[in-house]
Amino acid sequence: MQNKKILIVGLGLLGGSYAEGLTDAGYEVGAIDIKESSIEYAINKKIIKHGQSFVSKDYLALFDVIIFCLYPKVFVNWLKEYQHLIKPNTILTDVTGIKTWLVKEIETFIRKDLEYIGAHPMAGKEVYGVENSDKSIFLNANYIITPTINSTDKAIEVAYEIGRALNFKTITKLSIEEHDEMIGFLSQLTHCIAVSLMTCKDSTHLVDYTGDSFRDLTRIAKINEDMWSELFLLNKDELLRQMDSFLVQFENLKKTIENNDVESMKNIMRTSTKRRKYFDK
Amino acid sequence: MQNKKILIVGLGLLGGSYAEGLTDAGYEVGAIDIKESSIEYAINKKIIKHGQSFVSKDYLALFDVIIFCLYPKVFVNWLKEYQHLIKPNTILTDVTGIKTWLVKEIETFIRKDLEYIGAHPMAGKEVYGVENSDKSIFLNANYIITPTINSTDKAIEVAYEIGRALNFKTITKLSIEEHDEMIGFLSQLTHCIAVSLMTCKDSTHLVDYTGDSFRDLTRIAKINEDMWSELFLLNKDELLRQMDSFLVQFENLKKTIENNDVESMKNIMRTSTKRRKYFDK
Repeated sequence: MQNKKILIVGLGLLGGSYAEGLTDAGYEVGAIDIKESSIEYAINKKIIKHGQSFVSKDYLALFDVIIFCLYPKVFVNWLKEYQHLIKPNTILTDVTGIKTWLVKEIETFIRKDLEYIGAHPMAGKEVYGVENSDKSIFLNANYIITPTINSTDKAIEVAYEIGRALNFKTITKLSIEEHDEMIGFLSQLTHCIAVSLMTCKDSTHLVDYTGDSFRDLTRIAKINEDMWSELFLLNKDELLRQMDSFLVQFENLKKTIENNDVESMKNIMRTSTKRRKYFDK
Repeated sequence: MQNKKILIVGLGLLGGSYAEGLTDAGYEVGAIDIKESSIEYAINKKIIKHGQSFVSKDYLALFDVIIFCLYPKVFVNWLKEYQHLIKPNTILTDVTGIKTWLVKEIETFIRKDLEYIGAHPMAGKEVYGVENSDKSIFLNANYIITPTINSTDKAIEVAYEIGRALNFKTITKLSIEEHDEMIGFLSQLTHCIAVSLMTCKDSTHLVDYTGDSFRDLTRIAKINEDMWSELFLLNKDELLRQMDSFLVQFENLKKTIENNDVESMKNIMRTSTKRRKYFDK
C-alpha cells in the first residue's frame, strides 16, 4: 500500500495524529480541512505533503484512500454532498466511535463504485486540534475494524494496513453491533459515570483532599459536549441498556450497605477483585 | 520531636511505609505486629530498630508516640485490651480512613492520661504487607489531621510533625464530620462505583478492547473486602447519602439521553468539564 496516496478529511487531533503517523510510515498524505490555518500548520510541520480548505474533484482524484476524521453526522453529510467528486474505486474509512447507525446510514446512499470500511482507533487525548497531533497515542491503543457481510477483502486489508502503519498495539475485527455494545459499555457508560460523579457537587474545594481514586474516576469528565452528546444519541438504545445494567449493580451494592449485609458485600467485592485482575497491564 | 521514640502497631503496607519514612527521617522506630516474620523482615531491612509480636508494659514504656495502623475495629479492641499497659502521657495517633465512629468510640473508654489525635494519610497501594513498604507513596498524597475540641496543641503538633516527617504533599485539618463526608464522597463512593462497574458483566473478554477509560474507572475495583466492608459500614449514613446524590445525577443524565434532550445533556457536560479542570495536576 506504500505506493498509495492517503487523504485525511478533518485535520483535528485525531486526523493530525493519523497524518503524522502515516507520513512517518512513508505514505504520501494530503488533507482537507475547512480551517486553512490547520492545513498550513500541518504542511509546515511536514505532517502532510499538501492540502486544501475546499473540496475539488481534481484534488480528490490524487488519492486511493480517504480517511474521515469527522463527527459522525458531519461525516455522513460530507459524503452525501461530495461523493460525486470522488474517484471510482476509492476506499473510504474513518475513526468514528459508533458504527451501527453510521454503516446503515451510509449504505442507503453510497455510490456502487466506492467502498466504506469502518475502523475505530480507541485512542485520544483531552486536547484538541492539529497542533496537538501525536502519533504516539496509538502505541498502547486498540484499533478495531468493523466489516460487514458486504465488505471486500481489499477494503478490509486497507484498514488493517492503516492500523499496522500507525503501530496500534492490537488490531481486531468486530461486527458493527458487537462494536457498539462494547463501546456502550467500555467507553460511553464510563463517560456517563465520570460526568455524573463530577456533577454531584461543586467539589472544587475538595481538590486538596483528593487521592488518586477520584482523579482517576473523573479524568474523562472533561468532555467535548458536542461530540459526546452526538455519540451518546447515535448509540442511544445500547447505552441505555448499559446504564441500566450498571444501575442494577450499584443499587444492589447499596442494598447490602443499607442492610449491613457484610457477606453479600464481600462477595460483590471478591467478584470485582477477581475480574479486575484480568485488566492489569 | 526527633528525640521522641515512635511505636508502630500493625506492620502492614501502611505501617511499614510509615516506619520506613520515620526511620529515614531520623526517629527511633519500633513495631508490634502479631506476625513475627513481619517484625523480623522490618528489622533486617532496617525499617525499624526493634519490635515484638506481643504487647508488654516494658516495651510500650519505651515510646512517646504510638501510631496505630490497624483496621478500625481491631484498633478499638486493641486499645480496650491493652491501654492499661501504655505509659502515661503517650500520644496515640492512627491512619484510619473513617473518624466519626472511631473518635466517639474511643472517647467512651480512653484513659484520662492518654490522648488520641486522629490522622488519615490518603495514600495506599493495591498490594499488602510490610514487604511492599514504600515511603514514596506519601510524596504526592494528602494527610489530614482530625482534631476535636478536646485535642491539645501538643497532640496536634505531634500529628503535624509526623505528616511533615513523611513528606506528605499537603497537610490539612478537618473536623471528624467533615472528614467522613469528604471520604464518603471522594473515596468510598468512588470505590462503590468502580466495584459496580466491574461487576456489571464478566467483561474479561473485553480486555483487548479497553482504552484507558475503563481501566482508570476500575483500577480501585481490586479491593480488600475485609477492610472496605468495615469502612463502608462504619460510615454508612454518610456513604448512603453520597450514593443517593450520585444516583440523582446519573438518573438525570440518563433522562436527557432517553428524551434526546441535547441541550440539557450538553449543559451537564459543560458543568462537568468546568469542574474537572480544577483537578488537573
